[in-house]
Amino acid sequence: MTDRLDRQIAFLSEADKLKSVLRASRLHDNSRFENSAEHSWHIMLFALVLADQAGPGVRIDRVLRMLLLHDTVEIDAGDNPIHGTVDQAAVEAAEQAAADRLFGLLPADQEAAFRALWEEFEAGESADAVFAKSIDRVQTPLANLANGGGSWTEYDVSFEQLEARVGRPVRRGAPALWDWLTPRLRAFFDT
Amino acid sequence: MTDRLDRQIAFLSEADKLKSVLRASRLHDNSRFENSAEHSWHIMLFALVLADQAGPGVRIDRVLRMLLLHDTVEIDAGDNPIHGTVDQAAVEAAEQAAADRLFGLLPADQEAAFRALWEEFEAGESADAVFAKSIDRVQTPLANLANGGGSWTEYDVSFEQLEARVGRPVRRGAPALWDWLTPRLRAFFDT
Ligand SMILES: [Ca+2]
Repeated sequence: MTDRLDRQIAFLSEADKLKSVLRASRLHDNSRFENSAEHSWHIMLFALVLADQAGPGVRIDRVLRMLLLHDTVEIDAGDNPIHGTVDQAAVEAAEQAAADRLFGLLPADQEAAFRALWEEFEAGESADAVFAKSIDRVQTPLANLANGGGSWTEYDVSFEQLEARVGRPVRRGAPALWDWLTPRLRAFFDT
Repeated sequence: MTDRLDRQIAFLSEADKLKSVLRASRLHDNSRFENSAEHSWHIMLFALVLADQAGPGVRIDRVLRMLLLHDTVEIDAGDNPIHGTVDQAAVEAAEQAAADRLFGLLPADQEAAFRALWEEFEAGESADAVFAKSIDRVQTPLANLANGGGSWTEYDVSFEQLEARVGRPVRRGAPALWDWLTPRLRAFFDT
């Protein structure tokens, strides 16, 4: 039991580093960049509050667990801004190696369970993962609208690019959220 | 439906402010103070990983929801360090007013559900709340051990004070965690 607890606490201590992984997005008040740990908390709150937007068969408690874990690989692999240009194969290899190391700190049963949940999120095919991915995408547009542009300005993003990169996954998992956002995004990008 | 979504998004936008509420504790690497949003993420991870420490009847998914919501009142009421001296009645009044305003942003059904879950956590009597409170208390000692003292140094805390303020709630909900911590805490406080 002590070895089990040693491993669990080693993982939880390592996880503290996610608080120092910065995203391209900024807080609503524009005071600083957001980190991936507080982002993960925020989107779990989104998932809970917006649960009635989820499609049939979605289990919100599984979605919450998925979102709780979804960014931990960034401790080693870093955050890859959706509007940046990246080598997708290299990112995926780095994230797989990160998952090996980080989830590998845990007892074997938890390593397997957490890894499977993270892989399911990444694949984005199950009902739970589709909803989780839509929720993961919907927070940053709200922040950018609040702080006057944020990562859109930094990466010189057009409405059409936003539709493709963000609109598509949001519409897939939570279409009413994209409908709610669209006129607000148009107003921003038209001015 | 649009009014419902307007209310939900107003609440979620307001929640962004929890990322700017600073706690007395510092990150493991001692680089800065921790905020209440990333703290909330971290203790949800603690609850998931340490679920096998929970007593009979504890439902981890309810504990996760409780921990997700437990600090939102700090947006208005601020964080009250466990080792600080506070007027407990004034803190409770401020937190009740914060809960009125913040949960009041939500549609009525969600306001009632979230308020009830938060009150259950605060009361600390149900099996889920007892475990949630033990988990909420166990993260900071690990951070303080990692960063060389943190809030213990700042508030000049003794081992006996720590036993009473932190050990009691941790032992109540997750006794093996306090057993794991005790020799490490003694080693720190004895030197
Ligand atoms: Ca991410």
